[in-house]
Amino acid sequence: MKKLWSGRFNAATALSVEEFTESISFDQRLWRYDIEGSIAHTKMLAHQGIISHKDAEDIIEGLNSIARDIETGAFVFKQELEDIHMNIESALIHRIGDVGGKVHTARSRNDQVALDLRLYLRHETSLIINLLKDLQDVLIDIAKIHTRTIMPGYTHLQRAQPVTLAHYMLAYLEMFKRDIERLRDVYKRINTMPLGACALAGTTLNTDRAYTAELLGFDRISENSIDAVSDRDFVIEFISDVSIIMMHLSRMAEELILWATEEFSFIKLSDAFTTGSSIMPQKKNPDVLELIRGKTGKIYGALINILTTMKGLPLAYNRDMQEDKTPLFEVIDTIKAVLSILTELLGSVTFNVERLLNTAGSGYSLATDLAEYLVKKGIPFRNAHEITGRVVRYCIDNNAELESLSLDIYKEFSSVIGEDIYHKLTLSASVTARTSLGGTSPTEVERQIKNFLRDYRNKI
Amino acid sequence: MKKLWSGRFNAATALSVEEFTESISFDQRLWRYDIEGSIAHTKMLAHQGIISHKDAEDIIEGLNSIARDIETGAFVFKQELEDIHMNIESALIHRIGDVGGKVHTARSRNDQVALDLRLYLRHETSLIINLLKDLQDVLIDIAKIHTRTIMPGYTHLQRAQPVTLAHYMLAYLEMFKRDIERLRDVYKRINTMPLGACALAGTTLNTDRAYTAELLGFDRISENSIDAVSDRDFVIEFISDVSIIMMHLSRMAEELILWATEEFSFIKLSDAFTTGSSIMPQKKNPDVLELIRGKTGKIYGALINILTTMKGLPLAYNRDMQEDKTPLFEVIDTIKAVLSILTELLGSVTFNVERLLNTAGSGYSLATDLAEYLVKKGIPFRNAHEITGRVVRYCIDNNAELESLSLDIYKEFSSVIGEDIYHKLTLSASVTARTSLGGTSPTEVERQIKNFLRDYRNKI
Amino acid sequence: MKKLWSGRFNAATALSVEEFTESISFDQRLWRYDIEGSIAHTKMLAHQGIISHKDAEDIIEGLNSIARDIETGAFVFKQELEDIHMNIESALIHRIGDVGGKVHTARSRNDQVALDLRLYLRHETSLIINLLKDLQDVLIDIAKIHTRTIMPGYTHLQRAQPVTLAHYMLAYLEMFKRDIERLRDVYKRINTMPLGACALAGTTLNTDRAYTAELLGFDRISENSIDAVSDRDFVIEFISDVSIIMMHLSRMAEELILWATEEFSFIKLSDAFTTGSSIMPQKKNPDVLELIRGKTGKIYGALINILTTMKGLPLAYNRDMQEDKTPLFEVIDTIKAVLSILTELLGSVTFNVERLLNTAGSGYSLATDLAEYLVKKGIPFRNAHEITGRVVRYCIDNNAELESLSLDIYKEFSSVIGEDIYHKLTLSASVTARTSLGGTSPTEVERQIKNFLRDYRNKI
Amino acid sequence: MKKLWSGRFNAATALSVEEFTESISFDQRLWRYDIEGSIAHTKMLAHQGIISHKDAEDIIEGLNSIARDIETGAFVFKQELEDIHMNIESALIHRIGDVGGKVHTARSRNDQVALDLRLYLRHETSLIINLLKDLQDVLIDIAKIHTRTIMPGYTHLQRAQPVTLAHYMLAYLEMFKRDIERLRDVYKRINTMPLGACALAGTTLNTDRAYTAELLGFDRISENSIDAVSDRDFVIEFISDVSIIMMHLSRMAEELILWATEEFSFIKLSDAFTTGSSIMPQKKNPDVLELIRGKTGKIYGALINILTTMKGLPLAYNRDMQEDKTPLFEVIDTIKAVLSILTELLGSVTFNVERLLNTAGSGYSLATDLAEYLVKKGIPFRNAHEITGRVVRYCIDNNAELESLSLDIYKEFSSVIGEDIYHKLTLSASVTARTSLGGTSPTEVERQIKNFLRDYRNKI
Repeated sequence: MKKLWSGRFNAATALSVEEFTESISFDQRLWRYDIEGSIAHTKMLAHQGIISHKDAEDIIEGLNSIARDIETGAFVFKQELEDIHMNIESALIHRIGDVGGKVHTARSRNDQVALDLRLYLRHETSLIINLLKDLQDVLIDIAKIHTRTIMPGYTHLQRAQPVTLAHYMLAYLEMFKRDIERLRDVYKRINTMPLGACALAGTTLNTDRAYTAELLGFDRISENSIDAVSDRDFVIEFISDVSIIMMHLSRMAEELILWATEEFSFIKLSDAFTTGSSIMPQKKNPDVLELIRGKTGKIYGALINILTTMKGLPLAYNRDMQEDKTPLFEVIDTIKAVLSILTELLGSVTFNVERLLNTAGSGYSLATDLAEYLVKKGIPFRNAHEITGRVVRYCIDNNAELESLSLDIYKEFSSVIGEDIYHKLTLSASVTARTSLGGTSPTEVERQIKNFLRDYRNKI
Repeated sequence: MKKLWSGRFNAATALSVEEFTESISFDQRLWRYDIEGSIAHTKMLAHQGIISHKDAEDIIEGLNSIARDIETGAFVFKQELEDIHMNIESALIHRIGDVGGKVHTARSRNDQVALDLRLYLRHETSLIINLLKDLQDVLIDIAKIHTRTIMPGYTHLQRAQPVTLAHYMLAYLEMFKRDIERLRDVYKRINTMPLGACALAGTTLNTDRAYTAELLGFDRISENSIDAVSDRDFVIEFISDVSIIMMHLSRMAEELILWATEEFSFIKLSDAFTTGSSIMPQKKNPDVLELIRGKTGKIYGALINILTTMKGLPLAYNRDMQEDKTPLFEVIDTIKAVLSILTELLGSVTFNVERLLNTAGSGYSLATDLAEYLVKKGIPFRNAHEITGRVVRYCIDNNAELESLSLDIYKEFSSVIGEDIYHKLTLSASVTARTSLGGTSPTEVERQIKNFLRDYRNKI
Repeated sequence: MKKLWSGRFNAATALSVEEFTESISFDQRLWRYDIEGSIAHTKMLAHQGIISHKDAEDIIEGLNSIARDIETGAFVFKQELEDIHMNIESALIHRIGDVGGKVHTARSRNDQVALDLRLYLRHETSLIINLLKDLQDVLIDIAKIHTRTIMPGYTHLQRAQPVTLAHYMLAYLEMFKRDIERLRDVYKRINTMPLGACALAGTTLNTDRAYTAELLGFDRISENSIDAVSDRDFVIEFISDVSIIMMHLSRMAEELILWATEEFSFIKLSDAFTTGSSIMPQKKNPDVLELIRGKTGKIYGALINILTTMKGLPLAYNRDMQEDKTPLFEVIDTIKAVLSILTELLGSVTFNVERLLNTAGSGYSLATDLAEYLVKKGIPFRNAHEITGRVVRYCIDNNAELESLSLDIYKEFSSVIGEDIYHKLTLSASVTARTSLGGTSPTEVERQIKNFLRDYRNKI
Repeated sequence: MKKLWSGRFNAATALSVEEFTESISFDQRLWRYDIEGSIAHTKMLAHQGIISHKDAEDIIEGLNSIARDIETGAFVFKQELEDIHMNIESALIHRIGDVGGKVHTARSRNDQVALDLRLYLRHETSLIINLLKDLQDVLIDIAKIHTRTIMPGYTHLQRAQPVTLAHYMLAYLEMFKRDIERLRDVYKRINTMPLGACALAGTTLNTDRAYTAELLGFDRISENSIDAVSDRDFVIEFISDVSIIMMHLSRMAEELILWATEEFSFIKLSDAFTTGSSIMPQKKNPDVLELIRGKTGKIYGALINILTTMKGLPLAYNRDMQEDKTPLFEVIDTIKAVLSILTELLGSVTFNVERLLNTAGSGYSLATDLAEYLVKKGIPFRNAHEITGRVVRYCIDNNAELESLSLDIYKEFSSVIGEDIYHKLTLSASVTARTSLGGTSPTEVERQIKNFLRDYRNKI
């Protein structure tokens, strides 16, 4: 098949080159945006008198008929037509004749592909934000039930202080709040209209880019035509943002995997969300969580992919930039799948409340409460810390617990310790008293849940 | 030396462990922020009656005296004191006695290091934004002089269409505008106060985090104490943003290196910004630009470094997170050095205006003008493109130029071509007529320069 | 469909989980190796008397019939059967009854997938080595023709010294020699038999792993069963090796793109290996080379993908490891396509010999010859270098060339310079005299070509 | 200070350029190799009559005196002299006069830095191999003691089958065997002599590169001078190899961190290898292991650093390549520190043998033994697997253990089950019977330990 750009060529493209350079096998997913963009572009051309209104109508009708055929699967994509743009333009000319050749007036594939990609990514970004909200909703649901469920909080994976399960869930909620905020920030930059930059220099035709932007719902118009076709920042920034989301998810997956071990026994995953072994009949494995954690590699890899590809490219468009699509598409497919399944899975987790409580108190996790008790009695924190350290040492050596030491023994460590210490050295007291802003106490956590539901959830 | 946390330990830390785990060799650069944070924290403790005003005064005076000693180099950092926090607290206690031990009341190193890092990065982000503005100023200076300097615009590194040098410089200006916008976005998230989260669970003491935030100029307070000490998103996002900046700089460096070759001969670098060879006496090498391009690796590497480190970490603080500092510091040092030197270098570049003009017209770079001429005569673009392709083919076969073909020959390709074609086929006409928004014409470019200087430059 | 491992489960797998965890959509490419491995395993089981010879015959016949169906496309892969292993085992049982269930005796999917992957990668590694040899052959073909074609050699992309085109091509030949050597090294480690490790602990059945290894042509047997199923080193190392190959190819692509610019004009790409523009009718773009350069990102990304996925995984098998396949497959498909097309393209390049020669002499590229001349006259190199530097400076200031200065002028710079200098300051003399081992002189280059053809090419 | 290459320059280098381009602050660590290389080079020059023997003696004496001064710290490195090469050559000329300028005859900094780097890396690679052997020795020491210590083996972090602790340790031993093998492979390629390539084209002087190679103990000589100065494969390959080592160490660190939790309680870390908390007095944190795991990011980042830097560089030397050093040095420092401290730490770990045994039997970890028992009774594996699955399900539903079911109940599941089943369903029987090659049985593990000590350890 003759290439639409072949006027100046003597020899045909080698078949191997066609195969190597084609993008239709993956960029066909942009078809809806390609047609949407072409329709808006056509309207602008007619609006500006660059083509007639009759021609515009014919083109738009032709494009709509193509859209219908793609939707139903009746449209045949051809590798020799290279990409989605040429497949559609070629079909258009085939269907409505030479007038179809007017659709590419005052544009180039360079600005067209940038437009398609931005329209597509704008849409997907919204979807991903919604998936993050769904995940937040599950976290809030768990949190609402467990504001008074006490569990061990960890640092260095060593039990540190008792916290509430609700408080724990809200930590992840915060991460996803930032993730959404970042996606909203990149959305501003995605939502910029490149069309009209043409190959790189603009056009001598009397276009109205603001009109096209309005039709397509863009907030901004790219202000320099060379930059408009050279820019893939929005792809990189988007993948960076997803890398951070994925990092968060890898942490959550890691924790849930740990919690599902027999050693931790903090949660039980439902049979529906685990799989078995081909050799060991007793196994029930958290494969979904492992795959989530494992897919972090795919996202980080995509980030390095696009950054590497763009390194050192002279202006303006270079064909290297075609390599932006496969990583972007893979990132979008992966993050959507991961967020959906995790939301489902998380909703089906059973927490072993008794086990959480039982482990929360061990490992001298109330030592900080003893130290803060001493501070309140006027002892400088550093000395209070040291005294407490010695008490813990004593307990270890004598196989005792903090709450079981007699007051006499306590007094040997510090005379300021009184009977009231025993009221402090309970899990419930420890958690309840941590009312500092952002702290683990039920009242503080409930306040945060309310805030989220009232102020945040409705706004975003 | 006895560790401040050693109460519960029997055996001393192995010396090799001290060496392996210490961070004072690199985190001492945070000293100013550590002291600033401690002073604000101390004021809050006094304000809330957790310590006395007298104690607060002593502590602040002690901290200020330490600051002075560090400033003058009189302060000796000790590896066995692990990190900047313990070095300063230990010195404080040494100077003012046990009362110094009160400074660490209601905080932990977990939230303290997060605070220091945020204060530091907030400051550095502002500096980097200013360096980007300086670079923009040089670009605008060049653009102002060269709105009518014609040069070849490239796609695929093949000459595509004539553009103006000013237009070219503004393409980079746009990139840096986005870079600044991204840094402003991450700034919002950096500027969040973590102090008061303590180890992970908050405190039973009556702290006022809002007061501390106000003293330190923070816009937000982290809303969940577990998240506050687990979060390094702001480091990752910042390094992502710098990765994109560096990608832009690698593209500019690549172009300037190409332009400085004898083959292109578009620019001359001054002797002051080039270096020689140890063996080839005639060489004048663009080493600075090569190093800028080469340092892209360092930034991308730092991004992978921090992403890898954070992958799969359970909440809350883990010591892995100490590894956030060396990549961050390296990124900051590198990007500041690169932006400074590039701004200097760019200001000293001599453009070979004659050579730029001479190359702009070759390679049939006005073919698109011919095609757009045909479109204006009513020929569908796709046919216009094909006719032009055949004209170009004819020129190549007959060793002719577009502007040198006779009208008779032109008419053989299309009857709509008239005498007026010769007015279109000049570099000046081509460039002047591309007045579409963002296009290369001098009037459009001058409008953009004015906009930048009037609206943008003053605001940011 | 009931899972083969479902005995212990109450609830069915959620459909979303099936979709999320399935690998059959991509691991079906391993079918040939899965069946090859199962046949060898079956033979071993019979050989050891673990199953009867009759059963073995039935199983092998069943497997062969499945292989035929897959080959012809008649076999239907089912997502609910998860992966290639379960799809084949399930079909086997369906075809030959319960005896089919004996094939999985004394193995697990953990060791089975490791086996399949190693058999597959062993095969692909050989193919890639052959593609590298093909590329070397084209380089040698060009080199043989151009041992006396003089061109500029560059450092810092500035003309440095004249070299021969043959010498240049051999530089790439060396890179690919190392690449092949690296692939041969990783081949040793790929070619290690994991089967028999079972889930992780080995088996109580009387297997003979050496026998299976012999049947499948493995050189080594993995010596620890836990390691055998946890190890993906061979995937990472292979992708590392391909990353270096791709780095080499990105350098070659970059150079060819530069050489194909109008500014360099060193080469002409045939129409068959270039593509046109959708807007600029005159363009002839080196898209293939740009895509090769751009695809470097994909390979580097895959390396980070697998390294990230494997970070911090506890022993032994974790489902994260399923994520090894997509990057590996993508790397293999990409590198094979890139090597094939580059070999084709390189064979069709036309070198502009005249242009190469003309540019070789400019830019004072013979300055080093002058310096070495002075050294031979007894002047210490550093002084010779400085004298030559001053001569070059003099030439620049007086718009002269080295070979055009009079002897009188030369003598002012150094009295040792005599009439014989003019014999040295020719391109031909410069190149011819660089006979040091590995140097650019035609005799040395011809010696290297002969060595390659005689010793190297036949051996590898 | 005047640059040694400044002959052709009019203006001095800008100070900011000096600061930006200098490498002496980090490449001074190469001094020993720079001098070693220069001495060998000087001997070759004299041997070939290019300089006199007297000159050679003076130069060598001068170089040795510089070496002594650097060793004692008396030598002052100067930034304005750029790099280690110029610092030493300049000092040499200062000490012995113009004759010192002869040392740089027939070489360039391009081949000189490649030489230094290879000599350095050759040395460091040997050291790292030895550190890996030390780590293997500790593993073997643990394994020798624990061939009969039973512990749970995991897949998906769920208890799978009982294994021996010795077997577990040997899994890591295998990883490090491969790591050493890879380092030996890259060593071959590191150990290639580039000197004599000069700037890129070789020399007209009568050098003998084989002689130099012999003096410096190189096995190979780079065969193409352009490639010799363009090649950094050996750096990338080395860092790839270390990335895999680091991946292994991250897995081991992860496991030890898990094992040190209260939940697992498999090991106790000595006080000397843990650190405390600044706020929680009871904490004993595995910081060393966390830092090891966290430093994985640094190594992966360095790999991306060097790969990115080398992408798309035209031949031959470009200044970008100076950026190879900081990542390489960082990788070497990190891996050496990590291997040393881990070897020390591992030697001090206390295993909780009782806890290991107690957990090994739970979670129906003998189910596979039941399945293999059924296979031996003639039941196809797949059916045996299903029967066992149903038994496990029964046990879960009835809160029973496999070994506690009565024979009557067993017979309901399968009539082939007899009294002998109870001999199979013990931890000891399970482990002892897994005698397949590489399996977990004490006899097999002891065989492997013997093999390692007899064959492997002495050879490598």
